[in-house]
Amino acid sequence: MTRYEQLAQQVREQIQSGVWRAGDKLPSLRESGKRAGLSLMTVVQAYQLLESQGWIVARPQSGYYVAAHAQPLPQVVRSEKLLLSEQVDINTFIFDVLQACKDPEIVPFGSAFPDATLFMQPKLARALSGVARKFTPHNSLANLPPGNEALRRHIAQRYVLSGIQVVPDEIVITAGAMESLNLSLQAVTQPGDYVAIESPAFYGALQALERLRLKAVAIATHPQDGIDLDSLQQALEQYPIRACWLMTNFQNPQGATMPQKNKQRLVSLLHERQISLIEDDVYGELYFAADRPLPAKALDSDGQILHCSSFSKCLAPGFRVGWVAAGRYAPQIQRLQLLSTVSTSVPMQMAIADYLLHGGYDTHLRRLRRLLALRQSVMSQAIAHYFPPTVKVSQPVGGYFLWLELRPEQSAMVLYQRALAEGVSIAPGRMFTTSNHFDHCFRLNASFDWSDKHETAIKTLARLIRELEPVV
Amino acid sequence: MTRYEQLAQQVREQIQSGVWRAGDKLPSLRESGKRAGLSLMTVVQAYQLLESQGWIVARPQSGYYVAAHAQPLPQVVRSEKLLLSEQVDINTFIFDVLQACKDPEIVPFGSAFPDATLFMQPKLARALSGVARKFTPHNSLANLPPGNEALRRHIAQRYVLSGIQVVPDEIVITAGAMESLNLSLQAVTQPGDYVAIESPAFYGALQALERLRLKAVAIATHPQDGIDLDSLQQALEQYPIRACWLMTNFQNPQGATMPQKNKQRLVSLLHERQISLIEDDVYGELYFAADRPLPAKALDSDGQILHCSSFSKCLAPGFRVGWVAAGRYAPQIQRLQLLSTVSTSVPMQMAIADYLLHGGYDTHLRRLRRLLALRQSVMSQAIAHYFPPTVKVSQPVGGYFLWLELRPEQSAMVLYQRALAEGVSIAPGRMFTTSNHFDHCFRLNASFDWSDKHETAIKTLARLIRELEPVV
Repeated sequence: MTRYEQLAQQVREQIQSGVWRAGDKLPSLRESGKRAGLSLMTVVQAYQLLESQGWIVARPQSGYYVAAHAQPLPQVVRSEKLLLSEQVDINTFIFDVLQACKDPEIVPFGSAFPDATLFMQPKLARALSGVARKFTPHNSLANLPPGNEALRRHIAQRYVLSGIQVVPDEIVITAGAMESLNLSLQAVTQPGDYVAIESPAFYGALQALERLRLKAVAIATHPQDGIDLDSLQQALEQYPIRACWLMTNFQNPQGATMPQKNKQRLVSLLHERQISLIEDDVYGELYFAADRPLPAKALDSDGQILHCSSFSKCLAPGFRVGWVAAGRYAPQIQRLQLLSTVSTSVPMQMAIADYLLHGGYDTHLRRLRRLLALRQSVMSQAIAHYFPPTVKVSQPVGGYFLWLELRPEQSAMVLYQRALAEGVSIAPGRMFTTSNHFDHCFRLNASFDWSDKHETAIKTLARLIRELEPVV
Repeated sequence: MTRYEQLAQQVREQIQSGVWRAGDKLPSLRESGKRAGLSLMTVVQAYQLLESQGWIVARPQSGYYVAAHAQPLPQVVRSEKLLLSEQVDINTFIFDVLQACKDPEIVPFGSAFPDATLFMQPKLARALSGVARKFTPHNSLANLPPGNEALRRHIAQRYVLSGIQVVPDEIVITAGAMESLNLSLQAVTQPGDYVAIESPAFYGALQALERLRLKAVAIATHPQDGIDLDSLQQALEQYPIRACWLMTNFQNPQGATMPQKNKQRLVSLLHERQISLIEDDVYGELYFAADRPLPAKALDSDGQILHCSSFSKCLAPGFRVGWVAAGRYAPQIQRLQLLSTVSTSVPMQMAIADYLLHGGYDTHLRRLRRLLALRQSVMSQAIAHYFPPTVKVSQPVGGYFLWLELRPEQSAMVLYQRALAEGVSIAPGRMFTTSNHFDHCFRLNASFDWSDKHETAIKTLARLIRELEPVV
């Protein structure tokens, strides 16, 4: 290949890979030449070649532009990416399930994210606008770990108003609950330690344990009352467990909420043994009853409970602002954070703090809870109407997930694959465990504004469930 | 204690811990009673007690407010926190050094952050404002890993315009360079693997290796040319090294930039052995010469170089937006990110993308480079003027750090402690190594707008250096 052909090929590849898109102005001849160390004549030849091939067009007095019809190469098609064999790594599988929910052609019942339309909030936009006006780089230092002071005070006030004794000094602001959970786990364990988790559990917990080389002790967990405390007690006697990671309210994926007396027994069991509790309470604000179910943190007497939550599920998805009320571990978590992620995005911390200050949060939450309760009930009714009566469905009193059990001999993995081929995603039980105990289960996201599309998707699932042959 | 005394004590503790501040309205009598399960009379007695003690005041028709003079308990005083004994954990020490830089009373020569006044940018504020207007929760899904598409294209274009072949598809947007570095390390190693790093190195690298249970092989690194390639080659022959983590340009803490021929040899050495290079290039845009020194990534032929950078040092401190051009590891990094931190803050990604689209970035960068070069030269002159001639000072051609060497028998740790007592912070060599090789070295931040305060601080350091007795 000559030099000008090489240059033409480079530019063509840049267009195909999306660096330059139709209508973009290309670098000038002089600039291109200087950069590539080529003569002006060589660049002219390269651009003329590209023009003759239809990739770019010259505009007099202006330069070269990418032609309107020049298209990037097609992406890998979806069906290829999602074909699952038993050999595929579970993390890759989870990733693919979540990715499929980004596709607008797919009904995202398998999604972990609440329906975006629930969060249209002009007041939050105004808070962000206000921050844009007053943000200066000087704010950055003041918002380093433990994070924005006003925000930590607001969060502490909300705890106190719910009857939970938490002071601003034990709160650390994080990039969403995922960071608070990860930092908490690092603060209370060493690699090789045993950690008790629910079975089934949020896949993020399984991932985090694996990343930190911790040993998971999976405890049976029921769709109604949550973790089985007799099993937990047995495990505590059997293994040198250093920490528990639990969702006490509206557990993901099953939707269980531990009764108050269970929370008391849980806290006693752990307190006696000086075991830390990492309490993931991200759905705690999404209750359907009159009052918020108190987290175990309300019963914390010695700072061993690390209560993790965020604004991602109830106010501002995508802002990535969460926190941990970390008890005695707060100083350690600040240290871990500063040396690993530096800080939570400063404008985001300030925007949420402003929003909380100017009110409207509780009004928003009341509306959100009402809508979620309504939407869950609509989806439950559709399921009751169309699904075979052998399918068991959970009835959570908060959050936005339904947990469904097929007959034990039916495979939710097969259902997942067939449903996806028909444009419906579900979250199969396999995502939430390292065992095969939940291969006949799946989770549905119930947060959507119901429409014909959703009704049709439920009918599709119903038909596919009836067609499922028993697993041999 | 009676019930009302208990309640009064709770509220008093809330005021002392900063949940409620002077002027804040307390919850109403009815609300408080309901929450605490107490009669209205008990609450009235508690509030009257607090009023008689001067903690709160009643305002007719309105309720109870925290009294103007009610003060939170004093914080732990600084000097206690910073007293360092040899027993103190190095991470705690690094944290304390960084924390001290938040104190407005201290001249923050030990700070890792560039001077905030360098980043006063109305155009960035306008971009953020624009995002506030058009942000909807629907943007969240579209900005999940690999991140905002427009932002990834802009970044790819900047690579291409610098003569580096990078396509949008290999770029993953992260929460600052720290996340891109951490994800890169996870993508290319398994716990127990050997990783070659510089000595001295950015403390974030040491932390990350420790967290991921990797074995560090520290390679001698010079203040002028960077990592010693003969030593690296020897190490590669001696240990089964899986990855290198290096800063090829304006290395932190020494300020070294590898000459182009060294970068070529580095890439060859690693390429022959199929070893991944994690290239931390966060200071790459801050060059003082005419052209940007090319990163090793420019020589990448097989996608084994993961080039990590961010906008934190050159555009938007506190936004926490960075990226990695991850070559063949891009899909894996997306997966790791989605399952660990979910995504980078969406409004922040959109704001930076808008800013880059509307221009002005290169003008800003030119001004920033000019100012940093000027400020470094002013600080260097002050040092040359006041410091004993035995102190060696680096002369980096970019970035904003100076690296100083005392006589080998002088302790930078002792200097650190004495300087801090006089209101000046430095970053002692001990922060950047697990050895004691740099106990006579320290790093200064040269990014500040010079003033009498800084001149005085340099004089203070000069005096303290002269007073340093030899270490026995």
